[in-house]
Amino acid sequence: MSRYDELKREELCTLKKEIDRQYEEYKNQKLDLNMARGKPCSEQLDLSMELFRYTDNLISESGVDSRNYGFLYGLPEVRKLFADLLEIETDELILGANSSLSLIYDTISRAYNFGVTENMTPWSKLDRIKFLCPSPGYDRHFSILELFGIEMITIPLNDGGPDMDMVEEMAANDDSIKGLICVPKYNNPTGITFSDDTVDRLASMKTAADDFRIFWDNAYPVHHLTEEKAVLKNILKACKESGNPDRVYIFSSTSKITFAGSGIAIFAASKNNIEYMGRLMSVQTINPNKINQLLHYRFFKTVDGILRHMDRHAEILRPKFELVLDIFENELAGKGIASWTRPLGGYFISLDVMENCAKRVVELAAEAGVTLTPAGATYPYGEDPFDRNIRIAPSYPPLEELEKAMEIVCTCVKKASLEKLLEHY
Amino acid sequence: MSRYDELKREELCTLKKEIDRQYEEYKNQKLDLNMARGKPCSEQLDLSMELFRYTDNLISESGVDSRNYGFLYGLPEVRKLFADLLEIETDELILGANSSLSLIYDTISRAYNFGVTENMTPWSKLDRIKFLCPSPGYDRHFSILELFGIEMITIPLNDGGPDMDMVEEMAANDDSIKGLICVPKYNNPTGITFSDDTVDRLASMKTAADDFRIFWDNAYPVHHLTEEKAVLKNILKACKESGNPDRVYIFSSTSKITFAGSGIAIFAASKNNIEYMGRLMSVQTINPNKINQLLHYRFFKTVDGILRHMDRHAEILRPKFELVLDIFENELAGKGIASWTRPLGGYFISLDVMENCAKRVVELAAEAGVTLTPAGATYPYGEDPFDRNIRIAPSYPPLEELEKAMEIVCTCVKKASLEKLLEHY
Repeated sequence: MSRYDELKREELCTLKKEIDRQYEEYKNQKLDLNMARGKPCSEQLDLSMELFRYTDNLISESGVDSRNYGFLYGLPEVRKLFADLLEIETDELILGANSSLSLIYDTISRAYNFGVTENMTPWSKLDRIKFLCPSPGYDRHFSILELFGIEMITIPLNDGGPDMDMVEEMAANDDSIKGLICVPKYNNPTGITFSDDTVDRLASMKTAADDFRIFWDNAYPVHHLTEEKAVLKNILKACKESGNPDRVYIFSSTSKITFAGSGIAIFAASKNNIEYMGRLMSVQTINPNKINQLLHYRFFKTVDGILRHMDRHAEILRPKFELVLDIFENELAGKGIASWTRPLGGYFISLDVMENCAKRVVELAAEAGVTLTPAGATYPYGEDPFDRNIRIAPSYPPLEELEKAMEIVCTCVKKASLEKLLEHY
Repeated sequence: MSRYDELKREELCTLKKEIDRQYEEYKNQKLDLNMARGKPCSEQLDLSMELFRYTDNLISESGVDSRNYGFLYGLPEVRKLFADLLEIETDELILGANSSLSLIYDTISRAYNFGVTENMTPWSKLDRIKFLCPSPGYDRHFSILELFGIEMITIPLNDGGPDMDMVEEMAANDDSIKGLICVPKYNNPTGITFSDDTVDRLASMKTAADDFRIFWDNAYPVHHLTEEKAVLKNILKACKESGNPDRVYIFSSTSKITFAGSGIAIFAASKNNIEYMGRLMSVQTINPNKINQLLHYRFFKTVDGILRHMDRHAEILRPKFELVLDIFENELAGKGIASWTRPLGGYFISLDVMENCAKRVVELAAEAGVTLTPAGATYPYGEDPFDRNIRIAPSYPPLEELEKAMEIVCTCVKKASLEKLLEHY
């Protein structure tokens, strides 16, 4: 099959008739398939059901009654486990409640209302605050920034991370730029992992704002899909080595290790940051759910326990990702109408269609019963400058549904492309 | 034994020698007893261990997989259970994560940053914001207000609730007064329950500020200690009937029903308020821990199930409260040096000592190995205008420890009173 843009008008019209027919057929099936969110599937959730084997005695191995008040930062042994996982010190980590998104929100909110340290001006008292937003990125990050009226600057996200020349240039010269927010490993949605060089440059770059902070949402630290496991350089260490120990806030969670939205959220940072944030946190809550922490600890015991568990997730997820990639390859390759990522981990495949076609594809898919993440969602303000990027979340649907959904999506991509090409013929 | 203030100087001196000797004896025992916080004891926590019997299948009765993302407001059947408990509609309630304190903090924070409705000025944009604080009250409430720079006005708390003449007068005439925060049932620390008249006046009073809100921390709705169960009038209903449906935010939790800090937090309000808060909440988190909700639901099943469970708590707590009251009666009654409350429910006994003696009592107790809630903690800014009130938390220590601790406290009260009386003789 040749590239669509090399076809004559007549050929395009014939093709379009065929695709329109296919599309109508799908529509008549009145399907209801959802590929919008990065949700684990039931089989993945089943992997962690043994967590509840450990409920007979809820006094922790360190002697703490997990059922009672106290231990704002979490149970000591559980903090140690996750500190080991993230390769940081135990006192550089606080265990939150069930949501890392909440921790990100709260950290933004604290900087906004009280400043990032005792001596810095709260961001709310400044005329303008801006954040650098490598994109495509995570829609929920952008929603938080938008809610707080933080101006978002889109930075192109390349294979090794954000365009660092642009990041350095902007951060160095504009003191209203207060932060950068990103998913640095198995990025949501492109799947890329920041290179060592990117991490080093982020840690060491000059920033005009003294209170510049990197919000490092390490949501998928051990969420590999293949044997080729990406390694993300330790940014907290890099920041310390560059003399900027307080620059980074690290977030993670077990939402895609154990239970989505019922796991453990993690905040990691320099001891200075932990001390300050902990003090503010102590006004907000007495402690996170420590019973859930203890059960997680007993279920995993060691970092190795977590890694073995993640292998089992990968076994479930890999065929789904492979299926999507195979369908893309069979249906879309060589036509000049789409490109996509082949992630080594994480939860998403990022599909780029022809410019000004993403919204149309999502709309067509919706009409045919397939819910996709809204086009544009992966960019600040929901505005993809090229209306091109679509986030594909293969994890949740069973294989048969996924196959059907992706065939429909491919048909929608073809249909939208043909509409676009014929428009300009 | 006669009143201390009727004794001659010589008699006081003799008595003081005896008390000092007793005090030194206690000190030499190098005890370490903590009566500072309202923590449930192990036997109480054991009552809920059966919660974990229900983990075999985590698909909820309403068909929701509690292990996966979604349902920001909580599982439908669990919302219904707690709505029934609070005698409100299911859609007037959101289930939070594990901490009602967090819900209070978040609600203050949202009002501060975004206003209480779309159209109201965020409190942060106003020169001054004030809150009415019936006191003695809950120290953690005051800490939140202080952190946000909200000016706290102490309102005397009487047997039927706050001094309503003062509340009405102030709320009606000062539009910088934006709220009132309280524990209306089995008050922390006095144990009183607001009268129907108080509830009606709060619901119907004129407020100069359109965005006046009552933060109604109904922390102990079913936490009775005796057969004489206090009834708190339904304030949401009263607010609706008075044409002020949006005036009240209700908070509660199961921290003292199941597990302290690992239970379920509850936010209840008018549908308008729920809709607005829910929209802001959706930016902050995806959902609360629904597994924990489901286990709570299966454990209790009905409101009656909760009430029967609370009877078992009362059986454990009642002897502790009785012991404290007996010791106070034996040691302090008739001496004119102290008065105390006899709560029908909740977690505290409020002890009033002679003016300007509370700090000294707490200090003396600490030196003798008994940690009490800091004197003043029950007032805004930690400042008890009379330095008189001490919060006693009998729930946690075993009876023997409690007995010892209370004997020490009584000795400290006597010692501080004698010091004070002799000072002025």
